[in-house]
Amino acid sequence: MADIHALTRELHIRNDHKIVMMVADGLGGLPVEPGGPTELEAAKTPNLDALARRGVLGNSIPVLPGITPGSGPGHLGLFGYDPIRYVIGRGALEATGIGFHLHDHDVAVRCNFCTLDEQGNIVDRRAGRIPTEESTQLVEKLRSIQIPGVEVFVEPVKEHRCVVVFRAPGLGDRVADTDPQETGVPPLEPVGEDEASRKTAEVAAEFLRQARQILADQPKANFLTMRGFAEKPKLPSYEEVYGLKAAAIAVYPMYKGLAKLVGMEILGPVATLEEQIALLEEVYNDYDFFFVHFKYTDSTGEDGNFAAKVEKIEAFDAVFPRIEKLSPKVLIVTGDHSTPSYLRSHSWHPVPTLLVSDCCRPDGCEAFSEREALQGGLGHFEAKYLMSLALANAGRLGKYGA
Amino acid sequence: MADIHALTRELHIRNDHKIVMMVADGLGGLPVEPGGPTELEAAKTPNLDALARRGVLGNSIPVLPGITPGSGPGHLGLFGYDPIRYVIGRGALEATGIGFHLHDHDVAVRCNFCTLDEQGNIVDRRAGRIPTEESTQLVEKLRSIQIPGVEVFVEPVKEHRCVVVFRAPGLGDRVADTDPQETGVPPLEPVGEDEASRKTAEVAAEFLRQARQILADQPKANFLTMRGFAEKPKLPSYEEVYGLKAAAIAVYPMYKGLAKLVGMEILGPVATLEEQIALLEEVYNDYDFFFVHFKYTDSTGEDGNFAAKVEKIEAFDAVFPRIEKLSPKVLIVTGDHSTPSYLRSHSWHPVPTLLVSDCCRPDGCEAFSEREALQGGLGHFEAKYLMSLALANAGRLGKYGA
Repeated sequence: MADIHALTRELHIRNDHKIVMMVADGLGGLPVEPGGPTELEAAKTPNLDALARRGVLGNSIPVLPGITPGSGPGHLGLFGYDPIRYVIGRGALEATGIGFHLHDHDVAVRCNFCTLDEQGNIVDRRAGRIPTEESTQLVEKLRSIQIPGVEVFVEPVKEHRCVVVFRAPGLGDRVADTDPQETGVPPLEPVGEDEASRKTAEVAAEFLRQARQILADQPKANFLTMRGFAEKPKLPSYEEVYGLKAAAIAVYPMYKGLAKLVGMEILGPVATLEEQIALLEEVYNDYDFFFVHFKYTDSTGEDGNFAAKVEKIEAFDAVFPRIEKLSPKVLIVTGDHSTPSYLRSHSWHPVPTLLVSDCCRPDGCEAFSEREALQGGLGHFEAKYLMSLALANAGRLGKYGA
Repeated sequence: MADIHALTRELHIRNDHKIVMMVADGLGGLPVEPGGPTELEAAKTPNLDALARRGVLGNSIPVLPGITPGSGPGHLGLFGYDPIRYVIGRGALEATGIGFHLHDHDVAVRCNFCTLDEQGNIVDRRAGRIPTEESTQLVEKLRSIQIPGVEVFVEPVKEHRCVVVFRAPGLGDRVADTDPQETGVPPLEPVGEDEASRKTAEVAAEFLRQARQILADQPKANFLTMRGFAEKPKLPSYEEVYGLKAAAIAVYPMYKGLAKLVGMEILGPVATLEEQIALLEEVYNDYDFFFVHFKYTDSTGEDGNFAAKVEKIEAFDAVFPRIEKLSPKVLIVTGDHSTPSYLRSHSWHPVPTLLVSDCCRPDGCEAFSEREALQGGLGHFEAKYLMSLALANAGRLGKYGA
């Protein structure tokens, strides 16, 4: 497997050329009737269309043909990290998703509150899906748990879910789930596969012992199960592999968390696209690379709301004159995957992608759309190569070999 | 090298959506005069053209750019098995080609009858290309060979060729050829590279000793040489990697054999495309995936007969209304490689490929042809990714990562 970082690590050059990557989550779409337009084709996007005439288009394959990514692999690909090689374990992604910034050697675990009967057998693996307010209070109680030599963090997620993070040197993450995936049986004991993971398993067992006492009186959520033990993934930083001082301007914790994992600085807080662009303008001189994340093209797609996705694309289009005023050397517009409202979910379809610099080879594309992107100069490419294209267009990659 | 099966094995979902893969062997072609049409472009294919307007086109690269595959790698690619990683040894392919179903741990060997002089030196490596009728009789004689603890199968192929299969536990296939590839010298002794293969070499030596006695009186074919010792290739099954109950509907032994190697059920016998489609209709409810193989686009190409290949393509086109009546969730039309009649051989050219489902992104293609496929939404892709695309379009692949 070709590792593009082996090249960018050696070849990158520092200069003051800036790269702005605008990510419209779930950008790619589908028609809702045969031969009709996609959301992007139906949207009026005069600014993106003008950029398409100056720049070069292509189709980004998030992972591999046919593979539908979640947000984690989708963004890792855009950030230039092979999403097959770099895997963010479930616990680590869950922690990332709620904005918990993992340290090296933290082990994060996704937990579900559950209901045990008097014999200690699970009768409800999700504790009746207790409301978030209730689980937040239980999390507060669990924070009293103390384990010598280990920092313990307990964070609420949604409904019956929470995240536990163990912080101590030498903890491994090869620990089996304690959720037996069925009812009528007791939860499993945590079991570690190697020495470091056995240490984690002991810590987890002690956590569970104390949690059982603390939760004993609860009518529904009288225990919890653990799944997806995961260390912070070992991702080389943007600074190291690209020589870029990078900043993320995102509204939602998941995308801030993913950017943090590759060493971007997280700016904000910001709540709207307007605020994101204002912040971009404000800090423009302070960084080399900006990742700006726009969520609503994905959420409207997941709702199956074609018209709303069109509207969100048009709102996204409207900010580009302000970005162009900043005159970035390289401007990229893409998505981490497609979310066609027809499918109401993420999909495998390639993502229309636009790259604008002063050294794009003209490809004759007249608009930013899926159909036009098929004729685009970038062709079909795996998302993981987008960053090397960005660096090249920014004059930030030297020659390979003499 | 990314292994797509590592993903499909984890992510596949079972449902009742059916996939039909129609393979026209050697489908892709070339013009016979500059600027002229290819065979597919010259053929009248109203049904395939209508499907092209609904579906998505692309160019399938059988192995890698410039690499011309044989039938083995060509089909492995279409079946989603990386044809570089998975290699079917020559003996195993020869056995497969005559419809011999290899068991695990069988070792198959391709043999040539040859002529030895009185000193035991080879004077004709092909025994004067004796006719098949004659070699079939010799094979019958060789079936009397008995080796303690080993089941021995001898099967005729064509002219001076036959296949020998040794069946016993613990046989290896790293045995050097006994054909010295020249005349005036004696055949080589079989030599094994490792312990298991030395056991095979001993068995082979005993087989050759008895064969020499049995054939001693033959005027031409008084001995045989052995080449391409090969175990049954270790291919994971369609059931395991895709969760598909798969059936093959093919006329020729080679394609039945290849399908069998990946765990498809072999249906038939059938002798014509008409019978193939009738059988598809009959068993349509019993399987998830159907591989239907049409040979004559390849054989006419190998004959260098442009007009005949056009005719065969038109005959192939004619059956699609019947397939559409079955309403498969995913319909694929492709070939295992190109066989341009201009070249009278397999070639490396990409194969025009059509995928139809309800979630194809329109690509504006108006006909099923090489030229149109260049504008297709699937772009250029390695054949090994066709199955992940098929599964995705059938709603049979879950999301990778959260």
